[in-house]
Amino acid sequence: MRNIKLLIEYDGTNYFGWQKQKLGTTVQGTIEIAIKKVTGEDVKLIGSSRTDSGVHARGYVANFKTNSSIPGNRFKEAINTKLPDDIVILNSLEVMEEFHARYNSKGKTYTYTVLNSEIPSAIGRSYSYHVRGKINIEKMTETCKYFIGTHDFKAFKSDGSSVKTTIRTISDLHIEINKNKIKFFITGDGFLYNMVRIIVGTLLQVGRGTKLPIDIKTIIDNQDRKGAGMCVPALGLVLEEVFY
Amino acid sequence: MRNIKLLIEYDGTNYFGWQKQKLGTTVQGTIEIAIKKVTGEDVKLIGSSRTDSGVHARGYVANFKTNSSIPGNRFKEAINTKLPDDIVILNSLEVMEEFHARYNSKGKTYTYTVLNSEIPSAIGRSYSYHVRGKINIEKMTETCKYFIGTHDFKAFKSDGSSVKTTIRTISDLHIEINKNKIKFFITGDGFLYNMVRIIVGTLLQVGRGTKLPIDIKTIIDNQDRKGAGMCVPALGLVLEEVFY
Repeated sequence: MRNIKLLIEYDGTNYFGWQKQKLGTTVQGTIEIAIKKVTGEDVKLIGSSRTDSGVHARGYVANFKTNSSIPGNRFKEAINTKLPDDIVILNSLEVMEEFHARYNSKGKTYTYTVLNSEIPSAIGRSYSYHVRGKINIEKMTETCKYFIGTHDFKAFKSDGSSVKTTIRTISDLHIEINKNKIKFFITGDGFLYNMVRIIVGTLLQVGRGTKLPIDIKTIIDNQDRKGAGMCVPALGLVLEEVFY
Repeated sequence: MRNIKLLIEYDGTNYFGWQKQKLGTTVQGTIEIAIKKVTGEDVKLIGSSRTDSGVHARGYVANFKTNSSIPGNRFKEAINTKLPDDIVILNSLEVMEEFHARYNSKGKTYTYTVLNSEIPSAIGRSYSYHVRGKINIEKMTETCKYFIGTHDFKAFKSDGSSVKTTIRTISDLHIEINKNKIKFFITGDGFLYNMVRIIVGTLLQVGRGTKLPIDIKTIIDNQDRKGAGMCVPALGLVLEEVFY
C-alpha cells in the first residue's frame, strides 16, 4: 500500500485533542472522516503526538496507508475541501512504506504563549494563557539552562500515561517577548505527558519569585511532581514542528 | 446623571455587529445586559461606531449614563465579571455629562489583515482574510497616497446608510508586512458604510495588477461604486482606536 505523509495545522479549541475517543470530536477522527470522503477507505491516521484537548498545532505530522491513485501532493487540496476550517492540510507527500509519524520522530518544537496583562484579551483569547502581575523575564531566562540537556524529567510529568523511561533530552529552551506576550520555545527529542506545560508553569513560578532558578536542579534531582509548578492551561500550547 | 466612558475590546466573530437589533446577539446588547447586572439599571450604551457583523475592536469607545455610586474606574472589573470572554472592558472612567462617544469622535484608526498564502490558516482564522496568489506590495503602497486627503468617497460606500455628506478626510493609509500577513492601517475623521473594506478591496486589485495606482484618482472623481473594488470580508477588520 502507498504511504502518505501529511503536514497539518489545527486550532485545537473545539477538539478533544488529537487522538480518537468516544467522548467527543477529535482532530484525528475528523481528518479520517475527510480522507474517507476522498478515497472511500477507512484509514487509520498515525499521529506524531497525542496533543491534549485545546492544544494547537502549526506543523503536526501524520501518515496513513492508502490504495488510492491520487498523486501524493494532491491529497492536500482533496482533503482540505472535506475539512472544517479549523483544520488544514498544509502539505501532503508520498513517502516510503516504512515511514511512521510517531516511531520515526526525532524531536519536536513546541511554543507556549502567556499574555501578561492586567486585563485578559478578547481577540486571540484561544491562543494564550492570561497571567496578571509582574513576571521577571530575566530570572526565567536564566532558569532555562537548568532544563537544557539530558535529564530524568519524572517531576515534570502528569499521571495518566505509561512510558518506559522518563529520561528526555531538551536541546533548546528560550523565551521571546513581544509587547505583553511572553513566548516560550522548547525543543526536545520527546516530551512526557504535560511536560511542556509543567515546565512553563515552573518557569512562571521563578518569574513570580516563588522559586529560584537554582531550585530547578533540585526539583529535577528529587523526581517529585509536587516539587514542580502547575500544569498551565492547554490553550497557550502549539506543536510547531516535528523532526525526522 | 453620571456619565461613564468605556474602552472596549471584542472579538466580533460571534456577534451580529455592535448595534442592538432583533436578528441576533450584538456587542452593545451584551454589554447593556452586563451593566444591568452590575447597576440594576436599563442603560443605553452609546457607541462610537456601528461595526458590522464579524468586525473586531481593540479600542472601541462607548458611554452610558448611570445613577450608580460605583467609582468610574471600578466599572471595568465589575462589568467584566458579567461579560462573556469575547468582550472585555479595558478601561472605565467617569467623564463630563456632555461627552458623547459618537458625536465627539474626531477620528478613528482601523486595521485590516490579509493572509497571503497558498493554504488558509486554521490558527487565527477569525482575524484575517485569506488571499491566494501574488500581490504586489510596492504597487499597493504607491497607491495609498491617492486615498490620503479630503475627498468625496461616494465610490467607496455600500448602500444601506444615509449620510449628510460623503466627503471624508483620510490622514493616514499605510501597509505593513509580517511574513505572509499584509496589514493595512487607515486613519480618518470618519468612514462611510463599508468604506475601509472597499478601499482594501480596491488596493488588492492594484496589488493583483487589475488596476493601476493612478486609477484611484479616476474612481474617486467618478463617484461610482462600480469603479471601486469588492468589499472584503468583515473578519480582517479591527477598530483599533477612536480619537477625541
